[in-house]
Amino acid sequence: MRSNAPIISSGTNDLDRAVPLDKRWVVGVDLGGTNIVVGVLPIDGGRGDVLGCRNVPTEAQRGAKFVVDRIVGLIEESIAEVIAAHGGTRDDFAGVGIGSPGPLNRATGTVINTPNLGWRNFPLRDLISNGVSLPATLDNDANCATYGEWWLGAGRNVDTLVGVTLGTGIGGGIVLNGRIFHGVSDAAGEIGHMTIEANGRRCNCGNYGCLEAYASGPAIALRAIEGIEAGAESLLPALVDGKLENLTAATVYEGVVLGDPYANDVMRETAKLLGAGVASIINVLNPAMVVIAGGVTRAGEHLFEPLRAEVRKRAFKSAQEACQIVSAQLPGTAGLIGAIAVFKKETYGAV
Amino acid sequence: MRSNAPIISSGTNDLDRAVPLDKRWVVGVDLGGTNIVVGVLPIDGGRGDVLGCRNVPTEAQRGAKFVVDRIVGLIEESIAEVIAAHGGTRDDFAGVGIGSPGPLNRATGTVINTPNLGWRNFPLRDLISNGVSLPATLDNDANCATYGEWWLGAGRNVDTLVGVTLGTGIGGGIVLNGRIFHGVSDAAGEIGHMTIEANGRRCNCGNYGCLEAYASGPAIALRAIEGIEAGAESLLPALVDGKLENLTAATVYEGVVLGDPYANDVMRETAKLLGAGVASIINVLNPAMVVIAGGVTRAGEHLFEPLRAEVRKRAFKSAQEACQIVSAQLPGTAGLIGAIAVFKKETYGAV
Repeated sequence: MRSNAPIISSGTNDLDRAVPLDKRWVVGVDLGGTNIVVGVLPIDGGRGDVLGCRNVPTEAQRGAKFVVDRIVGLIEESIAEVIAAHGGTRDDFAGVGIGSPGPLNRATGTVINTPNLGWRNFPLRDLISNGVSLPATLDNDANCATYGEWWLGAGRNVDTLVGVTLGTGIGGGIVLNGRIFHGVSDAAGEIGHMTIEANGRRCNCGNYGCLEAYASGPAIALRAIEGIEAGAESLLPALVDGKLENLTAATVYEGVVLGDPYANDVMRETAKLLGAGVASIINVLNPAMVVIAGGVTRAGEHLFEPLRAEVRKRAFKSAQEACQIVSAQLPGTAGLIGAIAVFKKETYGAV
Repeated sequence: MRSNAPIISSGTNDLDRAVPLDKRWVVGVDLGGTNIVVGVLPIDGGRGDVLGCRNVPTEAQRGAKFVVDRIVGLIEESIAEVIAAHGGTRDDFAGVGIGSPGPLNRATGTVINTPNLGWRNFPLRDLISNGVSLPATLDNDANCATYGEWWLGAGRNVDTLVGVTLGTGIGGGIVLNGRIFHGVSDAAGEIGHMTIEANGRRCNCGNYGCLEAYASGPAIALRAIEGIEAGAESLLPALVDGKLENLTAATVYEGVVLGDPYANDVMRETAKLLGAGVASIINVLNPAMVVIAGGVTRAGEHLFEPLRAEVRKRAFKSAQEACQIVSAQLPGTAGLIGAIAVFKKETYGAV
């Protein structure tokens, strides 16, 4: 349990004393390969209700300058909307927190390399900061999503948690004692690239047997398709008009909801494989919480019940008993909320 | 790289200022299932040369009181030897750091449960403290071994490292920014119980596919024996007079040294499996160093060369490039040296 007063409430607890009261708002940016999400929170976080929220396609193929200009434009729109609704001026905005795919150099605010965006050594932080004439910070998107859940979401009552986001890949973030743990070269938290089968499936990272190669959205779909091609009876082919190439992880959840036993088998197998990874995390880091995010959590207890059962089998009792395994509470906004928390932490030393 | 001056040298750097100069010595105890090791260091660590060192069998089967009395007696012997050689009095001794198998409750100084010693909820710290009339601290043996390497061994120039000790089991410890990372219930660092094969070999912990089930001493011996029973040609049976039940991991190293290709295959396979675990650690924690300890490190480059090659294949470039993988430098004394470092950290807030 966190030793300080709840951080969500009033902005008057110990940790918040360092945050200046002459600033009312902070802007958050969650840059992804598919979409850009921008929004504003009051500097104390309020209840986590994001104001002036924008969510538009990234269109990375139009080039880095286009994406930066788009982000700058979205920030200006958000700021204008908040001022129109709540009064005040630009001086009420403390700055901008940015979350981006990595690897990053946080010190220089540079994106070292993002295959999804096609950028190399790109000074994203300063280009945005200059574009809007506000200070800005940059951190990894998965770190931001985890920090957002810690600040105002599922983890708001714990100090130490691990976030796992199941999507096209598997992202991860580690929060220790209220701080993002970055490691020695900003590369920590790659939960999706823990080996769970040393001689297992090839992963997009080039390695074999990573958690991501089993429990990401595309990996779930692939395992489902392989079983069907091997003769498993299932509703799933009918859900994609027999076109298995259109079968996605979402189709599998749909099958689970419709009561298809094969879809349920695929989900249970996913939960067991994810459980092996989560149990490893618990045995190594002994966190108070593991927060699972991403579309797959829509499967609810079809995922969490076998996941928790697998972890109980695999993790040490004292570590497993100390750890809640829960669904994320800020779908869609955790990334920008966490980027705002990073801005506060880096600027004022407190969130 | 550590930002402060080297801690080994003079005791006058920033971190050491909090340590009082009126105490000259600290006693360390490394309690194991097989042996008890006790010794003394000057409070600044000196060059890590342990004084008054004692190493005797634990004889746990003679009961908890016997073991405590033995430890108390060994501490008194060590203290007497140091005073005889260097002068001074008992007042020059600040206290005792104890490392013990776990799980432990560090706050109460209690051993919750140790299968090897047969203890449950045993107040080890206070019994020893009262027995020698000195303050004492208690931490996990694997944490202590890692902290010892951080303080005065292989890791003395880094802030953040992970220790992996390959023995009868596989122990682990995590040091982040110069502190042992304990997790929320003192259970962190169980590196040996990361899953590397989700449907793999049964581990002593009850789980399947743990690193320990592949790369501990007994696991190495078991894999060697299985291959021989399956028909592999090797010198190894001759080294144990054909009695495969006597084949140990040490026999495998002996075979490697003698140039036996099969023994080398077993060692390379061990290195690859260990590499999967070490790569996971590097992807998750992004440490500056992984320190490998235990008898298997006697295999030297027969182990480290394929281990590093496997990690290069498996870990992310930025994390892998930031991490040295090295052999421990304090065989036999890392545990008691780390226990002394824990005593200093808990008593004075600095090492």
